[in-house]
Amino acid sequence: MFRGLSAFPLTPVDEDGVDLTAYAALVARLAGAGVDSIGALGSTGGYAYLTREQRARVAEAAVDAASGTPVMVGIGALRTRDVLALAEDAQNAGAAAVLLAPLTYQPLGDDEVFGLYEDVTHHLSVPLCVYDNPATTHVRFSDELHARIAALPHIGSVKIPGVPTGAEDRVAALRALLPASVALGVSGDWTAVRGLNSGCDVWYSVLGGTFPRTALALTRAAQSGHADHANDLSDALEPLWALFRRHGSLRVMAAAASHLGLTGEVNLPRPLRGLDAEQRREVVAVLDALGLDE
Amino acid sequence: MFRGLSAFPLTPVDEDGVDLTAYAALVARLAGAGVDSIGALGSTGGYAYLTREQRARVAEAAVDAASGTPVMVGIGALRTRDVLALAEDAQNAGAAAVLLAPLTYQPLGDDEVFGLYEDVTHHLSVPLCVYDNPATTHVRFSDELHARIAALPHIGSVKIPGVPTGAEDRVAALRALLPASVALGVSGDWTAVRGLNSGCDVWYSVLGGTFPRTALALTRAAQSGHADHANDLSDALEPLWALFRRHGSLRVMAAAASHLGLTGEVNLPRPLRGLDAEQRREVVAVLDALGLDE
Repeated sequence: MFRGLSAFPLTPVDEDGVDLTAYAALVARLAGAGVDSIGALGSTGGYAYLTREQRARVAEAAVDAASGTPVMVGIGALRTRDVLALAEDAQNAGAAAVLLAPLTYQPLGDDEVFGLYEDVTHHLSVPLCVYDNPATTHVRFSDELHARIAALPHIGSVKIPGVPTGAEDRVAALRALLPASVALGVSGDWTAVRGLNSGCDVWYSVLGGTFPRTALALTRAAQSGHADHANDLSDALEPLWALFRRHGSLRVMAAAASHLGLTGEVNLPRPLRGLDAEQRREVVAVLDALGLDE
Repeated sequence: MFRGLSAFPLTPVDEDGVDLTAYAALVARLAGAGVDSIGALGSTGGYAYLTREQRARVAEAAVDAASGTPVMVGIGALRTRDVLALAEDAQNAGAAAVLLAPLTYQPLGDDEVFGLYEDVTHHLSVPLCVYDNPATTHVRFSDELHARIAALPHIGSVKIPGVPTGAEDRVAALRALLPASVALGVSGDWTAVRGLNSGCDVWYSVLGGTFPRTALALTRAAQSGHADHANDLSDALEPLWALFRRHGSLRVMAAAASHLGLTGEVNLPRPLRGLDAEQRREVVAVLDALGLDE
């Protein structure tokens, strides 16, 4: 399942709870567009802000609405014990894979990060994607740590942050470290095309969670060896990438989903706040200019 | 209550749960030593790793075992909704104050951090201590943000990170920004004496949570204007401070508490791991050399 476009939808949530109806429609829309997999409860899906019960309901809704498109479910939590419970819930919901970032409060040493993956993979029966996201976890994966973890059973993929420069060298270096069975996936949407063109197997995509056709066009161009065309498609999205960099991709996609009527206006949990009225107008102007109304 | 020594005990926890008996004894020991207040469920108390139910039981145990010594209870969580529930639990348990760090997964903007404190203070009836701890939260409080938050109702104190250099200027600058009713407290044990000698009202102390008499001697020296003596007492602890810097103060105090028989050997929740055998021997050697067997 770790190939092509993995689309990460929002989980619409406000102070009253998760809007499961809107969520199921978001997921069904991605499956209908033909994405290769769905990343439920990723960072864009706000997993860190939801209770175990909410996450179980969201995982079930995702698998149901995906109608056979494989669903990967985020199981990250600060405590190993909670991660194990979330892994069980995700598997019971029918997840084809799980996604695990090493959340931190106390900074973790490499042995502690490794120990987390060792404890969790010991109890898994589906593949796990290692989620390397220093912007949210503040864990810096060394190459040695990546290699140690990737040698554990059930490791199916590594999701790396964006590679703004030196993508070819970075991808080649990681490839040399990881078992051939471990798929390499790129995130950081605005430079993702560089990862894809450098041989990453999959794009773990925020854009794809709300604009699956646009993200698919880019992914298919890169997969079929049309690197220049893929680059052009990514370059054309630069006004949107600029908004991602300025506000964070989550807040921009939350504003876009609300504008498209896919969710209510409030769709992020406090303390996160949606963009203000002027920022939303900017987002809408960019979507209009790019023809992003799918 | 925001004066002198505020001692932050461990919450002994393993994969089976919290050891409330050992915890109550730890707290009673602090109260017996005469600390000015107790910081239950701070970073040293592992609040971020415990469930709401565990935290409620720990808060109740702390207030009970403190026998009248005021207890401040940590209420931090990633989501505002959870912080509000924890604030209610802490107040119901009899907390004299609450301690709130802005935990993050998605990086928060200043307006989001301010909004968190605004939402929480709106529902409080006890004073709140703003917990500025970039090493765990990755929030950088600007001076402007500190001033905005300190102007909210119920703000009783600001807990700042250690001030390794320029303590006098830093403390004077913050004093000028904060209302006179807001107590300034320093943490970062190995430079705390500089904060105290520069006019901080309180030391939020990791050391004091396990070695209250040693921390009290230093605090009382600084409070009574004997800055040189306070400096000497802190300098004498340099071998311990070196271990704090190397392993994190939490892991060192966890090893010390276990060595003193105050907790079981495993007293940290996974993915955190205690120090290994050789590191524990180093801790014991330092405690012995310093005569820290209180």
